[in-house]
Amino acid sequence: MKKALIVGATGFGGLGLIEILLRHPGIEIKQLVARKDVGVPVSAVFPHLRGFCDMVVDAPERIDFANVDIAFFSTPDRAGMTMINDFRDKGIPVIDFSGDFRFRSTDEYGVYARNKGMADGHLAADVIGEAVYGLPEIYADEIRSAKIVGNPGCFAICMILGLLPAVAGGIVDASTIVCDGKTGVSGAGKNPGEANFYPQRYENVNTYREGRHQHLVEVENILNREGSSPVKVFFVPQIVPLNRGIMITAYAPAKAGINTAKAASLYRDYYMGKPFVVITDTSPATTDVRGSNRCEIRPMVDERTGTLFVTAVIDNLVKGQSGNAVQNANLILGLDETLGLNVPAFYP
Amino acid sequence: MKKALIVGATGFGGLGLIEILLRHPGIEIKQLVARKDVGVPVSAVFPHLRGFCDMVVDAPERIDFANVDIAFFSTPDRAGMTMINDFRDKGIPVIDFSGDFRFRSTDEYGVYARNKGMADGHLAADVIGEAVYGLPEIYADEIRSAKIVGNPGCFAICMILGLLPAVAGGIVDASTIVCDGKTGVSGAGKNPGEANFYPQRYENVNTYREGRHQHLVEVENILNREGSSPVKVFFVPQIVPLNRGIMITAYAPAKAGINTAKAASLYRDYYMGKPFVVITDTSPATTDVRGSNRCEIRPMVDERTGTLFVTAVIDNLVKGQSGNAVQNANLILGLDETLGLNVPAFYP
Amino acid sequence: MKKALIVGATGFGGLGLIEILLRHPGIEIKQLVARKDVGVPVSAVFPHLRGFCDMVVDAPERIDFANVDIAFFSTPDRAGMTMINDFRDKGIPVIDFSGDFRFRSTDEYGVYARNKGMADGHLAADVIGEAVYGLPEIYADEIRSAKIVGNPGCFAICMILGLLPAVAGGIVDASTIVCDGKTGVSGAGKNPGEANFYPQRYENVNTYREGRHQHLVEVENILNREGSSPVKVFFVPQIVPLNRGIMITAYAPAKAGINTAKAASLYRDYYMGKPFVVITDTSPATTDVRGSNRCEIRPMVDERTGTLFVTAVIDNLVKGQSGNAVQNANLILGLDETLGLNVPAFYP
Amino acid sequence: MKKALIVGATGFGGLGLIEILLRHPGIEIKQLVARKDVGVPVSAVFPHLRGFCDMVVDAPERIDFANVDIAFFSTPDRAGMTMINDFRDKGIPVIDFSGDFRFRSTDEYGVYARNKGMADGHLAADVIGEAVYGLPEIYADEIRSAKIVGNPGCFAICMILGLLPAVAGGIVDASTIVCDGKTGVSGAGKNPGEANFYPQRYENVNTYREGRHQHLVEVENILNREGSSPVKVFFVPQIVPLNRGIMITAYAPAKAGINTAKAASLYRDYYMGKPFVVITDTSPATTDVRGSNRCEIRPMVDERTGTLFVTAVIDNLVKGQSGNAVQNANLILGLDETLGLNVPAFYP
Repeated sequence: MKKALIVGATGFGGLGLIEILLRHPGIEIKQLVARKDVGVPVSAVFPHLRGFCDMVVDAPERIDFANVDIAFFSTPDRAGMTMINDFRDKGIPVIDFSGDFRFRSTDEYGVYARNKGMADGHLAADVIGEAVYGLPEIYADEIRSAKIVGNPGCFAICMILGLLPAVAGGIVDASTIVCDGKTGVSGAGKNPGEANFYPQRYENVNTYREGRHQHLVEVENILNREGSSPVKVFFVPQIVPLNRGIMITAYAPAKAGINTAKAASLYRDYYMGKPFVVITDTSPATTDVRGSNRCEIRPMVDERTGTLFVTAVIDNLVKGQSGNAVQNANLILGLDETLGLNVPAFYP
Repeated sequence: MKKALIVGATGFGGLGLIEILLRHPGIEIKQLVARKDVGVPVSAVFPHLRGFCDMVVDAPERIDFANVDIAFFSTPDRAGMTMINDFRDKGIPVIDFSGDFRFRSTDEYGVYARNKGMADGHLAADVIGEAVYGLPEIYADEIRSAKIVGNPGCFAICMILGLLPAVAGGIVDASTIVCDGKTGVSGAGKNPGEANFYPQRYENVNTYREGRHQHLVEVENILNREGSSPVKVFFVPQIVPLNRGIMITAYAPAKAGINTAKAASLYRDYYMGKPFVVITDTSPATTDVRGSNRCEIRPMVDERTGTLFVTAVIDNLVKGQSGNAVQNANLILGLDETLGLNVPAFYP
Repeated sequence: MKKALIVGATGFGGLGLIEILLRHPGIEIKQLVARKDVGVPVSAVFPHLRGFCDMVVDAPERIDFANVDIAFFSTPDRAGMTMINDFRDKGIPVIDFSGDFRFRSTDEYGVYARNKGMADGHLAADVIGEAVYGLPEIYADEIRSAKIVGNPGCFAICMILGLLPAVAGGIVDASTIVCDGKTGVSGAGKNPGEANFYPQRYENVNTYREGRHQHLVEVENILNREGSSPVKVFFVPQIVPLNRGIMITAYAPAKAGINTAKAASLYRDYYMGKPFVVITDTSPATTDVRGSNRCEIRPMVDERTGTLFVTAVIDNLVKGQSGNAVQNANLILGLDETLGLNVPAFYP
Repeated sequence: MKKALIVGATGFGGLGLIEILLRHPGIEIKQLVARKDVGVPVSAVFPHLRGFCDMVVDAPERIDFANVDIAFFSTPDRAGMTMINDFRDKGIPVIDFSGDFRFRSTDEYGVYARNKGMADGHLAADVIGEAVYGLPEIYADEIRSAKIVGNPGCFAICMILGLLPAVAGGIVDASTIVCDGKTGVSGAGKNPGEANFYPQRYENVNTYREGRHQHLVEVENILNREGSSPVKVFFVPQIVPLNRGIMITAYAPAKAGINTAKAASLYRDYYMGKPFVVITDTSPATTDVRGSNRCEIRPMVDERTGTLFVTAVIDNLVKGQSGNAVQNANLILGLDETLGLNVPAFYP
């Protein structure tokens, strides 16, 4: 069994990792670390874990580096960059959940950081070039040999998987793609605030950060890197009364001659052999993927208006976060990519 | 007090009318008619009405034509067209909630009917030309003198109000407008079925009738009638775990030189003096209009991608249905347009 | 028009008052006061009020005492007791929403305060004896001439109204009454925290403060004051995934010979002429009263087990808070008790 | 691998079995049978199963008796009694999800059937005496050698587990126990109707079948069989806006000298070695058990009123249905009782 360290164990990202690793046949949790709740069993923080995982939470100062085959940093922005060198020096691979290692240059990072309203100087600029963007459907080979993986943003995963075949295949005018994104409330994390205040969130839909959500930087980076022509995306995130789930509906002018059958065929070819991407010809629903590591994608062409329309759904806490991270870990550790992750959605 | 007849009184449309007319200072309910629940008080169907409206439901055969200043047909498609002549002969104005009188020609009706999978022959073809499209923000003058008003579809109201200033003002390329629509579950009416099955609808978002929702016909009709160039709309409706509420997010290429300030100014001018349309410069939320007759619209231009982005929100059961119908009735009866409707949203 | 001051205008209690007073024909809002959001229009805090109430929020220091016929203190515990003398000296009647004036003695207050984990010394001990418990169904006469009214706790209103006829009528063994209470999330107020954290509250039911909820003190006080024998209540509050609504299910051994018909008759007699209490013989639902000032009560006797079973439902933000307060204000100001409050529930 | 047949595979009960057996190391699904959806893959009925279980649904006439080690009848009342002899003749053990085999006599069955408004004649009266009540925490030994197991009602499981230690231990006056039960909407099954109509169920709590819910018969049977004195239960079920989950709050007069510590100790002893019952000293929440096979129970004594108060929570679709059934199957097949079931709750 490979040994895992989880830093940031008491947030939703850490919880997701614990739940998956409890059933994982090749990776076991060796240590849980967090700043809050130090000294208490993680099952006191999450009562549903009682009897399943009663490991006590350690302070970051007590990390036992000798017992780590893979480290997950389920930590906020700018935390990973201060810890990374301790792990890099010891050759321990790290998967970071924040934006710290999703960019190839400090310039790209700066755009992301400013969009989020944070300090924009990167504190581990020397290692940023070694980091791999952790989307296994595209970068599996690089991830296998990586020591630092930046686990993508949840919206970014859904948008990139939904758009990349069309952009790389050149079947759309990529100069302005519209992405309309719906997310559940759990995406805002485990700290109570305006974004997850029940009386405001039940029975409500609203847009936010229209055209300037921080995940947009990642999406345009990757689509431009892999695509055949310059890509611009206008992305409007929305919060809907879901707890879990992301649905992206994306729109772009289709090139002449492209119809639904051709688009679907292109998508199927593109994701051939990718175990967690399912191309469908019916309307996807977030319930189809809730609790699972799947991304379900439906491309269709509306011939009347000449629009390629793509729907993509994921569970923001699984394929959008901890599930994708374990998928990365499986690759890094030389395990089967699907270990611990082959679970259908939780329904109803 | 003007006297109102409600046909189809025991559905959500009828209920909405009852609730509004109970507080209306100029219209009173004289008779409630329905096919189901005949002979029982409407408060036995809707217990929250006990003591507020205990009127007994009559069969359609017992309509008292002598006591009707305004008739509301809150009935399914193809019901109004069989009743209309009885009212027309007596000079009683009718507001119909279905698609029966939303179209100027039997051809247009046929497209609508086939999209909905119904028989497409219109049974009152001789009077279809007299009907007025019941969107008071645009057709107030025609409505004032109309005898037959087709109350628009809920999605159509939200889309038309959101798009018309841009289309009429010529600030977008209208040849392909994308409309991404989110609706609550109550839009499917009061009969239990797949669309409102709790275990499927809670924690779920899904698209349906992509590019072929029946309200699209109305939208393109009106936008083409009022707009300055040919309009095509690609509309993707979605069900989200709301009970009430519609949010439309619409996207179109902005003409050169158009920015958010200019668009907002155009929208404000267009709706000057329209009491139920509010132009805002912050992100609208469906909670801002739940239970009210308002449509809140926010136009913005994303200059990076050259996109005009419009958000519009309504309560599908009020401005999207019974509230809009009462607004029409006020106009027809020569009353102030806002009577009975000046109520803020129900929050939280 | 009588002139109202609302202190604590930007919480849910203040909002409830604004919504009701906007439609009230006999009371108008003259000033809104709060500690937070001073200097901004209340419609910036609650966007759905735009155009309906754009009054600017004043600091407590700027209260205009010359323009107040009735003052509402929608403020936290221990705020009202520091302000009361300024109003009392000027003869301005006050309705306080906290526990500050719900008790006749500092001893009773001390029990309440300690249950809530607060300091237990009352800071206006000299005036506590003048305060009236603001439950108009029981104390209307005292309220009419009161200068200080303690608006009851939401759970307390529902429990007292549900139990008092049985206790006063002597049809149960009151020595141990069980009250099982379900409340919506909005009862925890407008500050984000554990109690209203969406990911924890959706799909969840849990008990809390079992047998020691602070409202219990009020309930036993009043039941013992009005009842015919000593009363003890074991009360278990629960949070359910409602936003609004309280349902109390209460159980007590029925005296011999009492059946459902007799119990219902007793309840109907007891509440004869009380406009907001409805006795029903079907199962009440919180949707029957959401948004209304009604309390719906159903007494039944299970003869097999000899149990009197009472269900009572209210909207915690209306009859449980601001609606009840306006009812008190109507009495104090010599207005019809129902003014501004005769509105059916908001459904669906 | 043992071979399982699921009859009634396309309801929520069947789905629950499929989900558990997909991860079960000792039982595999051999055949799915239903009346509806015959000839289509079960993943067309439940899209989230695509790729996990695409087995085609067979008609009941096509049951392959040669390949069944254990049969699950996830069928409505009165279906199992018509099929049982075909299985009994072949020695195939059956676990039935309806009320058909929960009773020892046709008289007891008659009470149940009449409470549910069904025909009350039992169609397999000759075998009813062989059936075992399928609650493994009490009847594990009988279940191990049973050929017919009646899987209990979801409410019954929660009530019996919550009350039995107190009743058997003689620490309460069992002559009138009050059970206040809250259930999620999925308990009403997969057919759309009033009980699961979204606009009625969101934001609503209501009681139903007060004192006469059909599961009450089971509860009193078992408590009287195992208890030390005659037991009567007054049970009031309620629907709350949960999809999954049952919470029972039960109340009974505690015998003198019983306090929380003694009650908790008694409960812990009673369930010693029972892997799915957890006794807790904090307030249970339905989220603690959602998706898991656990029953979490908290006994406490309110000494002020002399009341034993027990809270018990389960997931109605797991421990309340398919999870409990698999637990029974494990026992019958000689497998470890926890196989396939050791999964923590799904959170958040």
